[in-house]
Amino acid sequence: MPDDAPPPQKSAKSAASYCWSGSREALAARYADIRGQTEALAAPLSPEDMQVQSMPDVSPAKWHLAHITWFFETFILKPFDTGYREFHPDYNFLFNSYYEAIGPRHERPNRGLISRPPVADILDYRAHVDAAMTGLIAGASENLWGEICGLIELGLHHEQQHQELLLMDIKHVLSCNPLYPAYDATLANGSGAAASPLGWHDYGEGLIEIGHDGSAGVFAYDNEGPRHKTWLEPYRLASRLVTNGEYREFIADGGYRRASHWLADGWGTVQEHGWTAPLYWREVDGAEGSGEFHEFTLAGLRPLDDAAPVTHLSFYEADAYADWTGKRLATEAEWENAATRMAADTGDNIEEGANLLAAGRLHPAPAGKANGAPTQMIGDCWEFTGTAYGPYPGFRAPDGAVGEYNGKFMSNQMVLRGACAVTPPAHVRATYRNFFYPHMRWQFGGVRLAEDV
Amino acid sequence: MPDDAPPPQKSAKSAASYCWSGSREALAARYADIRGQTEALAAPLSPEDMQVQSMPDVSPAKWHLAHITWFFETFILKPFDTGYREFHPDYNFLFNSYYEAIGPRHERPNRGLISRPPVADILDYRAHVDAAMTGLIAGASENLWGEICGLIELGLHHEQQHQELLLMDIKHVLSCNPLYPAYDATLANGSGAAASPLGWHDYGEGLIEIGHDGSAGVFAYDNEGPRHKTWLEPYRLASRLVTNGEYREFIADGGYRRASHWLADGWGTVQEHGWTAPLYWREVDGAEGSGEFHEFTLAGLRPLDDAAPVTHLSFYEADAYADWTGKRLATEAEWENAATRMAADTGDNIEEGANLLAAGRLHPAPAGKANGAPTQMIGDCWEFTGTAYGPYPGFRAPDGAVGEYNGKFMSNQMVLRGACAVTPPAHVRATYRNFFYPHMRWQFGGVRLAEDV
Amino acid sequence: MPDDAPPPQKSAKSAASYCWSGSREALAARYADIRGQTEALAAPLSPEDMQVQSMPDVSPAKWHLAHITWFFETFILKPFDTGYREFHPDYNFLFNSYYEAIGPRHERPNRGLISRPPVADILDYRAHVDAAMTGLIAGASENLWGEICGLIELGLHHEQQHQELLLMDIKHVLSCNPLYPAYDATLANGSGAAASPLGWHDYGEGLIEIGHDGSAGVFAYDNEGPRHKTWLEPYRLASRLVTNGEYREFIADGGYRRASHWLADGWGTVQEHGWTAPLYWREVDGAEGSGEFHEFTLAGLRPLDDAAPVTHLSFYEADAYADWTGKRLATEAEWENAATRMAADTGDNIEEGANLLAAGRLHPAPAGKANGAPTQMIGDCWEFTGTAYGPYPGFRAPDGAVGEYNGKFMSNQMVLRGACAVTPPAHVRATYRNFFYPHMRWQFGGVRLAEDV
Amino acid sequence: MPDDAPPPQKSAKSAASYCWSGSREALAARYADIRGQTEALAAPLSPEDMQVQSMPDVSPAKWHLAHITWFFETFILKPFDTGYREFHPDYNFLFNSYYEAIGPRHERPNRGLISRPPVADILDYRAHVDAAMTGLIAGASENLWGEICGLIELGLHHEQQHQELLLMDIKHVLSCNPLYPAYDATLANGSGAAASPLGWHDYGEGLIEIGHDGSAGVFAYDNEGPRHKTWLEPYRLASRLVTNGEYREFIADGGYRRASHWLADGWGTVQEHGWTAPLYWREVDGAEGSGEFHEFTLAGLRPLDDAAPVTHLSFYEADAYADWTGKRLATEAEWENAATRMAADTGDNIEEGANLLAAGRLHPAPAGKANGAPTQMIGDCWEFTGTAYGPYPGFRAPDGAVGEYNGKFMSNQMVLRGACAVTPPAHVRATYRNFFYPHMRWQFGGVRLAEDV
Repeated sequence: MPDDAPPPQKSAKSAASYCWSGSREALAARYADIRGQTEALAAPLSPEDMQVQSMPDVSPAKWHLAHITWFFETFILKPFDTGYREFHPDYNFLFNSYYEAIGPRHERPNRGLISRPPVADILDYRAHVDAAMTGLIAGASENLWGEICGLIELGLHHEQQHQELLLMDIKHVLSCNPLYPAYDATLANGSGAAASPLGWHDYGEGLIEIGHDGSAGVFAYDNEGPRHKTWLEPYRLASRLVTNGEYREFIADGGYRRASHWLADGWGTVQEHGWTAPLYWREVDGAEGSGEFHEFTLAGLRPLDDAAPVTHLSFYEADAYADWTGKRLATEAEWENAATRMAADTGDNIEEGANLLAAGRLHPAPAGKANGAPTQMIGDCWEFTGTAYGPYPGFRAPDGAVGEYNGKFMSNQMVLRGACAVTPPAHVRATYRNFFYPHMRWQFGGVRLAEDV
Repeated sequence: MPDDAPPPQKSAKSAASYCWSGSREALAARYADIRGQTEALAAPLSPEDMQVQSMPDVSPAKWHLAHITWFFETFILKPFDTGYREFHPDYNFLFNSYYEAIGPRHERPNRGLISRPPVADILDYRAHVDAAMTGLIAGASENLWGEICGLIELGLHHEQQHQELLLMDIKHVLSCNPLYPAYDATLANGSGAAASPLGWHDYGEGLIEIGHDGSAGVFAYDNEGPRHKTWLEPYRLASRLVTNGEYREFIADGGYRRASHWLADGWGTVQEHGWTAPLYWREVDGAEGSGEFHEFTLAGLRPLDDAAPVTHLSFYEADAYADWTGKRLATEAEWENAATRMAADTGDNIEEGANLLAAGRLHPAPAGKANGAPTQMIGDCWEFTGTAYGPYPGFRAPDGAVGEYNGKFMSNQMVLRGACAVTPPAHVRATYRNFFYPHMRWQFGGVRLAEDV
Repeated sequence: MPDDAPPPQKSAKSAASYCWSGSREALAARYADIRGQTEALAAPLSPEDMQVQSMPDVSPAKWHLAHITWFFETFILKPFDTGYREFHPDYNFLFNSYYEAIGPRHERPNRGLISRPPVADILDYRAHVDAAMTGLIAGASENLWGEICGLIELGLHHEQQHQELLLMDIKHVLSCNPLYPAYDATLANGSGAAASPLGWHDYGEGLIEIGHDGSAGVFAYDNEGPRHKTWLEPYRLASRLVTNGEYREFIADGGYRRASHWLADGWGTVQEHGWTAPLYWREVDGAEGSGEFHEFTLAGLRPLDDAAPVTHLSFYEADAYADWTGKRLATEAEWENAATRMAADTGDNIEEGANLLAAGRLHPAPAGKANGAPTQMIGDCWEFTGTAYGPYPGFRAPDGAVGEYNGKFMSNQMVLRGACAVTPPAHVRATYRNFFYPHMRWQFGGVRLAEDV
Repeated sequence: MPDDAPPPQKSAKSAASYCWSGSREALAARYADIRGQTEALAAPLSPEDMQVQSMPDVSPAKWHLAHITWFFETFILKPFDTGYREFHPDYNFLFNSYYEAIGPRHERPNRGLISRPPVADILDYRAHVDAAMTGLIAGASENLWGEICGLIELGLHHEQQHQELLLMDIKHVLSCNPLYPAYDATLANGSGAAASPLGWHDYGEGLIEIGHDGSAGVFAYDNEGPRHKTWLEPYRLASRLVTNGEYREFIADGGYRRASHWLADGWGTVQEHGWTAPLYWREVDGAEGSGEFHEFTLAGLRPLDDAAPVTHLSFYEADAYADWTGKRLATEAEWENAATRMAADTGDNIEEGANLLAAGRLHPAPAGKANGAPTQMIGDCWEFTGTAYGPYPGFRAPDGAVGEYNGKFMSNQMVLRGACAVTPPAHVRATYRNFFYPHMRWQFGGVRLAEDV
């Protein structure tokens, strides 16, 4: 989900199916809290940092701040707040991400060229929209409230999704600077802890159900449903993510030089780009082949922690590594089956104790001890699955702009599951389907091994 | 399967699991028959025709004639025929298709640059190998026979697969010539018959099995197994393929100009290449927008037959068309489930009466009347499914070069099922999995609609 | 000269051949004045504006501010000021433009990705270097003064050259913004004056001399010499530059749609990029073909002034326009011969009254009345010549880094002469050779017609 | 002149200015002779060889045979022979090279895709046109003769030019084949002779004239005139071409790894393509860095002859080599001045004894002894000059299609002078201007050093 969350519309089933059950005051407080978190994440960045787009997939931080505000303005304030005054007539063109149904928009690869409006204007834009949203939440009639409560919820999830994107993107931006500047140099360093030993958890065969049940009273994106049956053969999952140290052995064994481990497209990508290690690994002193690596993190360049999970590799690398070990990646159904059992055991508090954004590390950490269930299922790294991203049986994209959100990306991408060290805790679900093209590496992707029993 | 069949090895499970059950004389006759068919297909072509490579995906006809011969030489004669004398030391480099394990090879996009050896030498090469193969079939000891009978079978399937590729490829070559020359101008023209009306066939929910059962005594490629359980929701399939006339309505309705029907990658491809119709449609008099089309066929340029199935479109176009109708494409499990029932009804003679290579049309024909089962399931056009090509549960690629055949292509491609008007009849199975990248159009792909019940 | 001025070295003949003849106090004042002008030009720009690189040829304003400071630090302070303390060890890598001899450097197309150091640090860097330079100018021994006075002069010319580049570049950056923001919205608008009528000035045949005479006590770049003989046939020059109104007639007559006026490479470029007008022209209301244009200027988008010179076209367009009129472009020798006579008439004050940077318009203006000599020879627009940029007879590039300045660009580019509306007045000479690739358009290039007598 | 000769028109000055002064019978014999030579050059090639286009700059041999025939048909038979019957209506589209004025044409990079018409048809086409031409030469009225005699001459020069192109092109085609097949394996091998020692010839300063004088009764292309004055400083030319052995020293000294010898565009080209030696050099056993080379020739792969001239390098390499020696390339005026003196000494028989096509070697040979004048000025290799290809003073491209021949290529290319080992003798003139882009290498280009006195 490299870019964006669904633009809600009145007809949007997935949005309409969920409404905040607490008080309006509580929602207003939550709105203020999430909006404030976004600004706090941008606080360490200079106007120059927030301007840069380091590749077409990346958006400038300034654009993120504006786009998520445009979302509330376009889908809630303009259609439902009769007294709302548009902040600027050109912002709809500049800050629409990809909705063909909303009309023409600025080309994605050129987002970094738009030096004006400056960051200060975007902050004014945020304040303008926040004031209107706060007023609307407090003052909407009950009828209106029924129409917009689901959309507000969607807007907040959208904002949280962009919090993760903002951090992924600024990490890439800063990594392009030969000075390797830190987003926040004070972030906790590696603990020095060893990773727990690799164990296995077994799961039996059976006809299970996966996917989100729209009636459950929990928010979900449209691509997480419908809930449906699927048959699983017996399998097992590794107790934790693959570590940097384990991945170094793959490299040392010539993993990047031997075609036999790779999918044909993956091998082509390795040759084309000259990959020899994950995206942010840097060999010490430029002595290529030395095998001594540093890793660029949001805290700057640091010695590679062998105990921490390997991250920022592509699906192709994850798959080749799994092949090298004689194992494989899990399917998304296998992963969700395991996560659902874990959720049942923890009373659905699957994010508790997980290394997510709130933990403040902004980097994967060594696995702790597994207690009856795999550890690191949530947090640390999004986990590559061997499943191509496609529609669940019975899926129909909603009509209108909202239909563009997930359905139109259902080709050529692979599903990732879980969450990572920069995912907001409230944005985590066992049914969540993340997806990236198999060559992409700037997301916090990691590897959990699986095998047939 | 744009290129090639599996290079057998002794360890190859799929090859070893099947051995010709008839007499050696009968196999020798079948060998001679298939090899002769290939040469008959090349007979209408001049040396110049056989030299051209019109795009990287296409191979020159001369290369096909040599590569399938190299296959017998490399995997059977060299390892098993102690008296065999290699025809030419450089041919292994020139005619290896993509087997990394076999060593370096000539680059695929440059196959058309190799003017020498000339066609005459390749025919000598064929004769040389045929003589040795004939001797080996007759004279091998019983022990040796046990080792090679499966490999010979594989080589023959490989040759048949390349018969289809040779025709697909030469069609593309000739289409690049502004004179639109015919491969064979005497091919039967459209019958003038109308297509049967579009009906629907319903299938119930249930836990079914798909895939090839290795023990069944029928040859199959490795990617067709293992046989495994899968759950199906109730669905229905259209009684026949979508016609040119139906597809013209999609075009007339602005199908190629409206993003909402398309996958995002598909829409990007349409924009990039300026697609406005299937690959071989040509507007009359170049009057773009007139809606009067001709179609380039192996018989040359002909007026578009509205009753014939639309063909030579990409997965993206097939999917967009289905979206426009409010339906969808079938999954490969849905397709195979229907084909299996049909096979049961016909005593496995699914290719009987089908429009395959032996029918001599070399082009899809209007659907006849459906009798209780969907028609055109086999022949006319390969049918796009909505399933991404990946490994079946429990699939492991065999070791060695044979492992490169199918497994390494399991990313970014889509499954097609059935067979087409240039597929040899003996090359047809209900479990057969064909696959192409979603933007590819030069194969004979077509559309059958499906929907949820 | 898209990028940069020569890095001086002790051996640099062109630098050594000239030394400031005034007092040290006067040079210190001039140093302060020029450095201050640069900062004044950057003053209207936000940190976001100064970060953007809109294409590989463009550098961010922040980079310009730093690079010209690096020049003084690298070529004067480090080698000659024993007490100098380097400002930052990484700046040599970041702010070297293209000198292979100086060592590795940051890749040009990625200058816009370097958000740190921020603008504030660059201003500190400037102050640090300015303090050291001021001290050095005041305190250098007489011996040292002899060594560095020419280098200081070179550094100041380099800085002036970058003042022009900074404005060219920021114009391109702002033009990529769909809001068309102004660099300075208060700039003088078109006067409403008509252009003077087009007349002609004749020049006779003869063996003349062109190029800079190194002994003349006037600063020049190495590529302006040696002074040498060349033979001219009789010719005439137009009395002024071609206007927007005249160029519109070329467009209206199908100039961009008819191959016969174009060089083959030019026609290919027109097709590839879909050019239909000069770089910064925009058709009103997007009504392509309407012929009503606005022009983007440093003051924002303004109605096209038919009387002003056409600018921001490529050599290919200049040449095609000239062909359409039945005339041609002048050679650089023809241009310099005319300019030299004009200089003789004006006592070398060729920049007096010219529309240069000091005039504060930052855009070409309609031609005034010509008095005996062509007008607009200096200022308004750089004038395309029909001469490929190459070495003068006897030219040898100096050794060392300085040798990379001009010599290595002597292929595939065309010479432009004169100066433009954003050139600093003191940077103007009749012998000055500017050069750009024939497809480039973001410099202020214009057209003066010539013909054989 | 990578492609083609000028399409004559009645208005074409250069064509009209020359008419064959001998008898019609003699011209008919010359016509038959030249046409027959072309077919003799194609005789060693198979239909497959004649089909291949190995890069966009190369044309298939079959296309050459057809295009030069189209030239006579289009510019002489169709307009002037009222009884002429067009051979095939599509050939005008297929075999027009680049004349925009003649109408649409098949795209150059796709010439190799046109397998039909086959070679046999092209030979029929040639015979058809030859019969008509022979009839026209014999039977034209005197008036008509006056109109067409210059055009016939032009057609014959055009044919000769394509004889050279055919050999250049087929050499490139065969070089792409890993078997390195020979065009003619019986060609004379290197003599084993040493090259004559390198000497120098001096030339004084002065105002000279170069270019072709249209009234001289000798055929020339339009770009060779007008004859005009130019001033030369004193200079000297090397007595022979640079040898392979001398060029190997440049390589051994790191010439391809050191930026300082190269033009910036040349250095970029070296990096982009990874050049380490001239186009057709191959290191023995693939042991890169060994310094032991073979060279691909029209006789196949042969050990590199140190005494023979280095050939098949680009302008960039020629210029870098000259820089490495501390010398330079000559200007075209310097070269022509020397050649003109030589011609005066030899009574204009400058091609006598030269290693041209008629010598039958088809490869440059070691220089013999120089007698008072530089040797190898004509033949062996085209000599790179340091002069960008542009119009001579007073040059105006003729109106109509003929105007497209030379004028439209006058940007971005460099002039080469002399002739090479595959140039027909009658196609040689001291004023002849050949031209190629500076990165091109498949022509027989070589290096003669020059320097200032």
